[in-house]
Amino acid sequence: TATSAGAGQTSVFTLMTRLAAEHGAVNLAQGFPDFDPPLALLLAAEQALDGGHQYSASAGLPLLRRAIAADREQRLGTAVDPDDEVTITAGATEALYCTARALLGPGSEAIVLEPFYEQYPPCVAAAQGTIRYVTSRFPDFAVDLDELARAFTPRTRLVFLNTPWNPAGRLLGEAELRRIGELAAEHGAWLVADETYEHITFGGARHIPVASVDTCRDRTITISSVSKTFSATGWRVGWAVAPAPVTALIRGVKQFVTFAPATPLQAAAAEMIASMPTGYYDRLRAQYSQRRAVLADYLARLPLELAPHNGTYFLTARAGRDDVDYCGELIRRSGVAAIPASRFYHDPAAGRGLVRFAFCKRLDTLRLAGDRLTTEE
Amino acid sequence: TATSAGAGQTSVFTLMTRLAAEHGAVNLAQGFPDFDPPLALLLAAEQALDGGHQYSASAGLPLLRRAIAADREQRLGTAVDPDDEVTITAGATEALYCTARALLGPGSEAIVLEPFYEQYPPCVAAAQGTIRYVTSRFPDFAVDLDELARAFTPRTRLVFLNTPWNPAGRLLGEAELRRIGELAAEHGAWLVADETYEHITFGGARHIPVASVDTCRDRTITISSVSKTFSATGWRVGWAVAPAPVTALIRGVKQFVTFAPATPLQAAAAEMIASMPTGYYDRLRAQYSQRRAVLADYLARLPLELAPHNGTYFLTARAGRDDVDYCGELIRRSGVAAIPASRFYHDPAAGRGLVRFAFCKRLDTLRLAGDRLTTEE
Ligand SMILES: CSCCC(=O)C(=O)O
Ligand SMILES: CSCCC(=O)C(=O)O
Repeated sequence: TATSAGAGQTSVFTLMTRLAAEHGAVNLAQGFPDFDPPLALLLAAEQALDGGHQYSASAGLPLLRRAIAADREQRLGTAVDPDDEVTITAGATEALYCTARALLGPGSEAIVLEPFYEQYPPCVAAAQGTIRYVTSRFPDFAVDLDELARAFTPRTRLVFLNTPWNPAGRLLGEAELRRIGELAAEHGAWLVADETYEHITFGGARHIPVASVDTCRDRTITISSVSKTFSATGWRVGWAVAPAPVTALIRGVKQFVTFAPATPLQAAAAEMIASMPTGYYDRLRAQYSQRRAVLADYLARLPLELAPHNGTYFLTARAGRDDVDYCGELIRRSGVAAIPASRFYHDPAAGRGLVRFAFCKRLDTLRLAGDRLTTEE
Repeated sequence: TATSAGAGQTSVFTLMTRLAAEHGAVNLAQGFPDFDPPLALLLAAEQALDGGHQYSASAGLPLLRRAIAADREQRLGTAVDPDDEVTITAGATEALYCTARALLGPGSEAIVLEPFYEQYPPCVAAAQGTIRYVTSRFPDFAVDLDELARAFTPRTRLVFLNTPWNPAGRLLGEAELRRIGELAAEHGAWLVADETYEHITFGGARHIPVASVDTCRDRTITISSVSKTFSATGWRVGWAVAPAPVTALIRGVKQFVTFAPATPLQAAAAEMIASMPTGYYDRLRAQYSQRRAVLADYLARLPLELAPHNGTYFLTARAGRDDVDYCGELIRRSGVAAIPASRFYHDPAAGRGLVRFAFCKRLDTLRLAGDRLTTEE
């Protein structure tokens, strides 16, 4: 049966990608593009091969830290110090891991909004923290702010937020964030803002960076990466932006976990971010709107209820039956892999029947999957 | 004062590299080449940019796992299963970290031979294990096998071995390894064999892979990387080779730490290892012999006692005074950075006066450093 992945359990992404390969299924399970990163990034990588191949600073290549600080200053309007507030990591994954280990310990608690990104609970466990879950449900995945308030205790150190939210497919709103910030402030907790999908929004919805909300500003660790913004999930270049004292703690953990991320890929990312092709983010959004429309059209023809969606490259739907069974049959009978999203709840019953489809795929891939999904046997 | 780096303390490599930059000193402190990786690796990387840029399997790119398994089979003569016994990591660093977390827990113990590689103690601490140190001393750094035997308890789970041994500069011998394996077998402990410098040996000394020793074979996790063998410390591609059940545990940790290493760099490493240029390892050794001779000549002119040396790209010497003071003055007065090696002992008194010099540098860099070291002010 589906339970949230813990130590010893294999990631559902690994499981489903393996199953997809075994069954020759179209992989709409694990969230990685089946198209290439932008040419500008690849050219920057080619250039970077003429540069350094040795350890960068453990905190990351100064050029990349500066590019990220400048990008954030421009978009958020607040100054970021690249020396003391930015840390480059092996993907957002390592940033999340090191943040949990930096700020949690025995006896401390973390609040995890569910449905959660699979990695959050094991991060808390690795740091010996205890988790309190706050449950959001299909179809709106609204955050119950009263339940959230009750989840805080004097031992709360961290609140994991994901906006745009995978797999809920929505953005956290200004009012929600303001209230979350108030609660965190009252309890002296930090907000872990996983903003991996920050540029993948739809229908004019505006992503609100958690650190841009006044109640959150001084207590947010913002995490993102090149993975989704530049369609380069395999580069493993991410970052954590946080106030200097927290940054020091994160770096203290990370120096003995991986030491530093890949130097040439950091250099290429720095070049890309520092010289962003005009309109890049708009094109990314436009392309994803098209991909989403194609998949949504097919899904609308199935006996599935679709959740509203304005962010991330995942559509989540409710099947009238157990999602693990449903996804098993989908792979075997239709040749399409999706994720049984009850795995993203600590009590799978709260998400029973939810199925997550990734649309970060070429249009022909999406059409192939859609045709398979909608063809009667 | 110098103490072994723990959580919250900044790596001595980061500190010394930063100081070196501040003082315009030649950096013989942190162990990274100041020359490029072999052309074959760079060409493979250029090729790899035309390949995949998305997540590899969390266990690592199958091509690279197969190349490593084949290389080990050829050199050790024992079969390695790339599917179940090889895990690719973000450098040897992540392999060491995940191995500790996979096999240690509260109440369990790890034996660490000192002088140690700086990362071992924090790895054990992160896994909530307790460390028992076994001390080897200048100039021979012989392992006291009686002291080692007394360090084992019923709670010993891991023994950290580094051969060639940084910073001791020597290889572990067959007799030592056989006895270590016997002790580990008696106590049901695993051997963590950090063989990062496996190809950097001198004067005909033969590196003995720990897993090739009969008493160690079934209980060894062998860790290495492209960093030193291919002069690419910034690529962060390493691996752990271990029996299937241990491999499963390591992967279980690692999937939530970094998920996977950089795909294009894994692909390039696979190509390099699978099509090794004839005589590559011999040339590497010959080049390092020359670098070592140049540095050793200069060091011989200083009031330093040099330890015997037959492996790693570090020379360790004893100054007649406190090594932290000595290295401080070396940077400020001579413009050369080295590592105060008492940092590599849990009780710095055991290594007081020891100074480690890296010779993984171009000949002109070594001559510049040597001239600075031997010029009277
Ligand atoms: C690290 S594999 C998970 C990829 C992803 O972000 C997702 O599918 O949710
Ligand atoms: C990860 S920085 C340490 C480099 C190294 O191997 C050493 O100098 O010992």
